[in-house]
Order: sequence, then structure tokens, then C-alpha cells
Amino acid sequence: MAIPRTKRTFSSPIVESRRWLQGVSFPADRPLLNLSQAAPADPPPEALRNVIAEAVLTDDSAHLYGAVLGRHELREALAEQVSAHYAAQITADQVAITSGCNQAFTATIACLCDEGDEVILPTPWYFNHKMALDLAGVTSVPLPVGDGMLPDADMAAQLMTEKTRAIVLVTPNNPCGVEYPDTLLEAFMRLAHDHGVALIVDETYRDFDQRTGIPHKLFQVDVWESTLVHLYSFSKSYRLTGHRVGAIIAGRAKLFEIEKFLDTHTICPNQIGQIAATWGIANLQGWLAQERQEVLDRRAAIEAGFAVLQDQGWRLLGCGAYFAYVEHPFDTPSIDLAQQMIHDCGILMLPGSMFTPENDPSGERQFRIAFANVDADGIAEMYRRLADWHPNRR
Amino acid sequence: MAIPRTKRTFSSPIVESRRWLQGVSFPADRPLLNLSQAAPADPPPEALRNVIAEAVLTDDSAHLYGAVLGRHELREALAEQVSAHYAAQITADQVAITSGCNQAFTATIACLCDEGDEVILPTPWYFNHKMALDLAGVTSVPLPVGDGMLPDADMAAQLMTEKTRAIVLVTPNNPCGVEYPDTLLEAFMRLAHDHGVALIVDETYRDFDQRTGIPHKLFQVDVWESTLVHLYSFSKSYRLTGHRVGAIIAGRAKLFEIEKFLDTHTICPNQIGQIAATWGIANLQGWLAQERQEVLDRRAAIEAGFAVLQDQGWRLLGCGAYFAYVEHPFDTPSIDLAQQMIHDCGILMLPGSMFTPENDPSGERQFRIAFANVDADGIAEMYRRLADWHPNRR
Repeated sequence: MAIPRTKRTFSSPIVESRRWLQGVSFPADRPLLNLSQAAPADPPPEALRNVIAEAVLTDDSAHLYGAVLGRHELREALAEQVSAHYAAQITADQVAITSGCNQAFTATIACLCDEGDEVILPTPWYFNHKMALDLAGVTSVPLPVGDGMLPDADMAAQLMTEKTRAIVLVTPNNPCGVEYPDTLLEAFMRLAHDHGVALIVDETYRDFDQRTGIPHKLFQVDVWESTLVHLYSFSKSYRLTGHRVGAIIAGRAKLFEIEKFLDTHTICPNQIGQIAATWGIANLQGWLAQERQEVLDRRAAIEAGFAVLQDQGWRLLGCGAYFAYVEHPFDTPSIDLAQQMIHDCGILMLPGSMFTPENDPSGERQFRIAFANVDADGIAEMYRRLADWHPNRR
Repeated sequence: MAIPRTKRTFSSPIVESRRWLQGVSFPADRPLLNLSQAAPADPPPEALRNVIAEAVLTDDSAHLYGAVLGRHELREALAEQVSAHYAAQITADQVAITSGCNQAFTATIACLCDEGDEVILPTPWYFNHKMALDLAGVTSVPLPVGDGMLPDADMAAQLMTEKTRAIVLVTPNNPCGVEYPDTLLEAFMRLAHDHGVALIVDETYRDFDQRTGIPHKLFQVDVWESTLVHLYSFSKSYRLTGHRVGAIIAGRAKLFEIEKFLDTHTICPNQIGQIAATWGIANLQGWLAQERQEVLDRRAAIEAGFAVLQDQGWRLLGCGAYFAYVEHPFDTPSIDLAQQMIHDCGILMLPGSMFTPENDPSGERQFRIAFANVDADGIAEMYRRLADWHPNRR
């Protein structure tokens, strides 16, 4: 008996962790610290809200079907911005707008893979990438990260088979937070190109990279169109998570194929979110610079405060963009600890085992801390609660 | 060499037909009559636009991630409305909100099917259903319609194999326009139930059904949850095509699985569209009744005016909701005629071969006329232009 696609994958960790909260109440003097999801907790700035409201009232196209690959003005605006950001020459017809960055990934996989093909994912992985591959009938080939939570291109080379169709990199990384050096990305680009497979680079968190300057030169490679697929999200940068707007930058031949997938699944991205993103690119760069600084300040607070946990045997494995990735000192698996932490500490964070393959025990010792939602006081409070926590001695 | 998913299907007929229009200009006194897409050409009513704009400005949740299966108030509102419409008892936890009705279909297929499974589709089919099955690695088993463009359950029974997972019915039908009798739907429900497969009923156009009263009793069957999956779209009824909001009504066990797919693909439906749909259900029923009457008037105009084409050898095969499905009298295949019609008549309609399997020649003699966008004058103009058209004698 065949097993339906959805039975071949697990429930979303975000959904699963929300179930843990059902029926739990938190005292007023110690509210829940939710460090589980990588999402702004606040709406977009007032000016952007006004622009959206105005479009709703006056722009008929905000309510009607649009082009499958997105509104031309947004494709053009992103092409220009990306060209400047990477010192490259990207054109609007190399850009597709999607219903969020998860769909950017699922659409890309559909244009690269068939049943039983293989895609290399560094582990810890972003769980929705693993779920997407399961749902597509594609085998995820885990590439465990090494020093500094960085994947190694030589190790990836050992995993390539005739069924390999792509390598996926997320930088800054979800869940580990680390920013991939340009030399690392270039090594993977060479590897992918030499083997005739795609390199998918998910840069959802690029606007919160601590480094300044060009993050990598992949778009400067003459033949990038044959190898590179770049994924981006407007959700984090402009606080548009509820609007579902992401993007793919890829070669035109790939976008021709991707258009079939997008048409079949959602016909077009919703128009309002696209209007918002277009205005954001043109008008919110100063605001975004402040947002970035705030996230970098939180990152600094995470790093500066970590000593108190280090004294208890915790280790900070990676930190950057929205995430810290940590190792805990306890004997209990992280999936159980996470649920105990809700009750003991009033803190929700996702266990490392939600980011690692079933047969890989490393995740049992790990947690992802999505700190971008929590301000400096919240971070200090998290450290206070965790420093006093000794779950094994309960 | 494996073939990527997207190469296993065709380009969207809507996208393809837009390409035909590129570079074609139409004289001011004979503008293009676009009868290709099933979409309202106008924005939603002013009151709904005001509600959306207000939510944008004042409701923070309009901009933030929401529940994967949709906003509770919309799930509840649709459950109530559907319960009343079908004299049944549907609850909010049997409702999932999706990013449009196409996604309702792709998500449903993922929870039912594995690679190489089979799904029975009456032909002419809705092309995005065929594309979705191609992209999912599922074989579409064509069930040619018979008298009155209606599929026959006994004929479907002959097509069932051990790989069959579902039968798909669209009523009122796209592309044929016909409204399926309740006895037909009940026969298919029995067939599906007896074989332990799903019956997927896409009722995107239900609000434009000419019949009054309960359209079918499928939701009244005690065990409907084990067999029936009902799909719906808010796009046509409330003119929200650009917002991407659809729905699935199904058993809770199926929705648990579908949640994995929706989370992986789009995380959640966009919030604005859901807010609009919720308000629409509560406040636009009087307005929708007028919309329905307008579509029924256009349908009557199509039927009343058809005699002029009948004299030229055309046949009206089906008519209802947004569509007329017609047979033309010419020797040229419809895919070529459609392009010639643009130049000769300034009319765009989709050829029947975009709705039929490659090895089925019937579509070459057919066209779908999506008349809901065109008022009575436009319909009269269409008949004037087509009555004078003799492409074989050019």
C-alpha cells in the first residue's frame, strides 16, 4: 500500500511546539518568553501601513489576479537592489516573486528534482526544507556541519552521487545563526558547477548580517544562471510575515519552469504584499538599517550574557541574524527538556532534534534560540531563568 | 536521466494565452474581448475595501504570521455558512483556509497520494488540476464526459484500479459550465466510499449556481469525513482574486496531514485576504445575490444569443456559472483557431485542447468561453464578431 506524501514527513515543529503551550498558563509576573519562531512580533512601520491602506482603497490591481511571476515593479526593484547589494547585474526577468520564501524553495525543488533524486542539506537543517524534500519525494542527504557550525565543500563532494540535483545553503544560517564566509560559498559554487547540480542559497536573513560589504561574489560569476538559485524573503526585513512575499533569483530557463509550479499552486502571489514590498525597498532602507542594528544589539546581548550559562556547562555553538544555537549540559533529550522548560522556566525554544536527522543524536543536546523577538530585558530575563534551571535534579 | 517535475507538465494555458497577445494591438473601435480567464475584472465593493484598509491600519495581526490552517474566525464563519448552505453540521476544525483554491487542491493531493498513484479526472478537465497531478507524480486517469457534458459513475467504476486514490468533480463545472445533479454527486460518493478512495468536489463556482436550495446532500452522509473533500474559493464570490484565499472542508485526520503541506509551502495564508473573506461572509450576502443574478443574466444572454452561431454550425455543449463550452464548425484545430481569432476578431478564448488529454482529439473542436467578465453588450459584440468569422475561407 502506498503511503501518501504527507505521511512521509513530520508535523511542523512550530505547530508542534504551539501544541505544547495549549492549556498551560503563565503567571503575570513571569510571562512566557517565546523564543521559538523567527518572526518579528511587531507590525510594519506606520508609513508602510498607510501605503498599503491607500493601495487597498485606490489601486484596483491590489485586488485582482496579477502575473504568475509577480508584479513587474517589484521584480524590477528587487533586481536593482540585489544588483547593488552584490555588485552584480541582475535583471527583472531573473526574478520571481513567490508566496513567501518557503514557496520559493518548494518551487525551486520542483524545477530541479524528480522522485528519488537527492539534495544535500547541511545539518542542523531548516526543518521546512527537510519537509519540502520529503513531500516532493526527494531524499535529503545530510551534511553534518564541522568547526564553527560550517559545512565543508570537500565533505559535500564525498556525498555527491548521480542522483544529486542540488546543494542547499542557508546564510546567515537558520538554525545556527552563523554567517557563511564568501570563500565557503565560492567553494560550494565550484563544486555544484563542476558536478552540474544547482546551488540553492537561501538568504532570508541577509539584511541582518553583521558584516558589511558584498557578502559573496556568486552573482559575479559569468555562468551563475546555470548553477545558482538565490532565495529571499521580504517577511523579516519589512515585518511582512503575515503577507507572504518571498523571491527567487535564478536563470530564465529555470524561471520558465518555476512559473508552471507557481501557477498551479497559487496562481500568483497576493498583490497587497507585493505592493508593500515594493514600497519597502524604495523607502525603508534607513529604517531597515536601524532594525538591523537592533538585531545586532540583541545578538551582542546574547553573546555577552552567555557566560552565566557557560558556567553551568552550556556552550554557544553559533550566533547571528535571528538565532543562537546552543548545547545544553543535561542528560535528558532536548525534545523532553523543551517541554519541561515551558513548565519550569516559562520559556519556549525549539529542541535541536527538530533540526537534525532522526539517526543523528547531536540534536538531543541542542537548542535553537530565536532571539530576534526579544529585547535586551527579555534576553537578560532568559538568562536569569535558565541559570537557575537544573532539570536533572528535579 | 531523471526529468524534473516541472518538465513533466505543460505551461499554464493562461500564461500561454497571454503570450499570444504580446505585440498585438487592437483598434480603439474594436478592443480586445478577453474571454480567457475566470476572474472578476472589477475590485471588491467599496465597503469591503474600507474594511480591509481599516484592518491594515489598526489590526496588528493583519501583518503577522497566523495559524497554518487559517484564522479561527474565518474557519468558524465558513463552517457556519456551509452548514446552512448544505443543511449539514460542519465545525471550524473541519475547515482549512488555503492560499487560494489551487493550493486547496495541491494540498489535498499530497495528503492522499504517493508517486505513481492514480486520480480520476472527468475530461474536459480544469488544466491546473492536471498540472498539479503531473507535478505530484500522480497519474491523471481521464473520464470522458457523456451526455450533457456529465461524467458517469458507472464508467468511473470501470477505471478504478488498486492505485486509484481519488475522483475529482468540479461543479458548477470548469470548463463546461454545467451544474452536476445531486443524484450524480451521490452516485460518485457511493462509488468512492465503496472503493475506499476520496471524492474531491471543487465548488469554486457554487455561489453562481442557477439552482436554489441545497445543491447536494453529501455533507449529510454520516461518514462524509472518510470520503469527501470539498474545495471552495473566496476569489470569485467576493472579488478577491488578488488576495489568494480558498478553503478545504475535510475530515480532521486529513486536515492534520494537510497542515504539514501548508506549513511547508506557505506557512500560513495571508492575513488580509482572510480578514476580507470573513467580513464578506458576514456582510456581503445581499451583494453576492446581485452578483449571482448578474452572472445568471449573462448566462441567459449567452444562451439566447447562441442561435446566430448555431446557424453557422457551432454547438453549445454546456453553459453555467462563469463558462460556456462550445464546439466550432471549422477544420482547423482549436489551438490554431484561438490564435487566429485574436487577429481576426479581437477575441481571446481558450481552445478545448487546453482542457483535454493529448491523445483525445475532441478538444480540437472546442472552446471555453469565460463570459462572466463581459457584460450583455460585450456578449452581443462577441456574437457579432464570431458570426462573421469564416477562418477556413481566409
